[in-house]
Amino acid sequence: MTGDSGLSSGKRTHPINQETKVKFCSTCGDNVSLRIPNGDNRERYVCNSCGEIHYQNPKIVAGCIPEWEGKILLCRRAIQPRHGLWTLPAGFMENGETTEQAAMRETREEAGARISIDSLYGLFSIPHISQVYMLYRGELCDGHFEPGIESLECEMFDAQTIPWDNLAFHVVKETLERYFKDKQNGNNFPLQRGKITKHPQRE
Amino acid sequence: MTGDSGLSSGKRTHPINQETKVKFCSTCGDNVSLRIPNGDNRERYVCNSCGEIHYQNPKIVAGCIPEWEGKILLCRRAIQPRHGLWTLPAGFMENGETTEQAAMRETREEAGARISIDSLYGLFSIPHISQVYMLYRGELCDGHFEPGIESLECEMFDAQTIPWDNLAFHVVKETLERYFKDKQNGNNFPLQRGKITKHPQRE
Repeated sequence: MTGDSGLSSGKRTHPINQETKVKFCSTCGDNVSLRIPNGDNRERYVCNSCGEIHYQNPKIVAGCIPEWEGKILLCRRAIQPRHGLWTLPAGFMENGETTEQAAMRETREEAGARISIDSLYGLFSIPHISQVYMLYRGELCDGHFEPGIESLECEMFDAQTIPWDNLAFHVVKETLERYFKDKQNGNNFPLQRGKITKHPQRE
Repeated sequence: MTGDSGLSSGKRTHPINQETKVKFCSTCGDNVSLRIPNGDNRERYVCNSCGEIHYQNPKIVAGCIPEWEGKILLCRRAIQPRHGLWTLPAGFMENGETTEQAAMRETREEAGARISIDSLYGLFSIPHISQVYMLYRGELCDGHFEPGIESLECEMFDAQTIPWDNLAFHVVKETLERYFKDKQNGNNFPLQRGKITKHPQRE
């Protein structure tokens, strides 16, 4: 999960607040104020000197449900938050990518697996942390997988063996519950949309 | 389109570059360098003083194809870029929203219309400007619409009357072409995914 790992690697931790506090202008270095710019309708960080407006917007977490011979691939996290718990390969989308490329890259980075992208399956907004999850169904190209540096291990599971009590994020649990239900109901996988309101700390 | 209007309103213009140059750290105000942080695999702006990493990620543009009595609602832009050209109501998703809420808000702001959200219809990545468009089908609640401050006028169109030569963005043209084809083929609207590579300046 590029850009979503533990402090030890120097990369950002899982954001729990939807806004990052801006104290200084990234363009001119002067102080900023929180105010409503002309023609806008909500507060932004605005530079007191050069007037630059520092918008903050939700981030996309792109990922995959990697399928192979009737099972799916999960990764056990080697990083914070939720170190040691299981998750789908997913991470922050990078500039210059398509959402499909981001999902493929994350699956390669975290699970050492190459996939072909199938349908978009899960589209979940998590407004309290300003994230949007986009999880594609994907087929492993050759069955190969191995843990990347952000994973302790990777393993194939079916509905019976999924570590339901040791999943890292509520959005992953929600997605997998719906996925296995759809699988049971004749492998029909319509787009699943939803809103995740649970805070990780309170799950 | 909150956060995507002309200079006159003090809001940001349509970004044409995928990266915004960061010169100063927004946390401590010191200088930053472009370098690969430990444990990462791509260049980021990193503060030379406090070490803060300033990630940059794609933005979601959420919007709607507002439907009413067999026609759809378009807005003529009162703002730059593409002033005077026609578009679907859409704009940058804000923190704290779901994608559906963002689409409803933009439709209300730009076209004065209340909608109920139907399926997600268009999902288009535009990697050269690091945007992801998410366009829902939506039904007007009561047929009412009126131009918001970012629109010169709003009008209902069918496939024959759409101003095909005066659409503001390639992603809108692509979406509407697919939409009317699907409409003609029995009102079956599967999710349309794609990648937009055309630069607005070169369309």
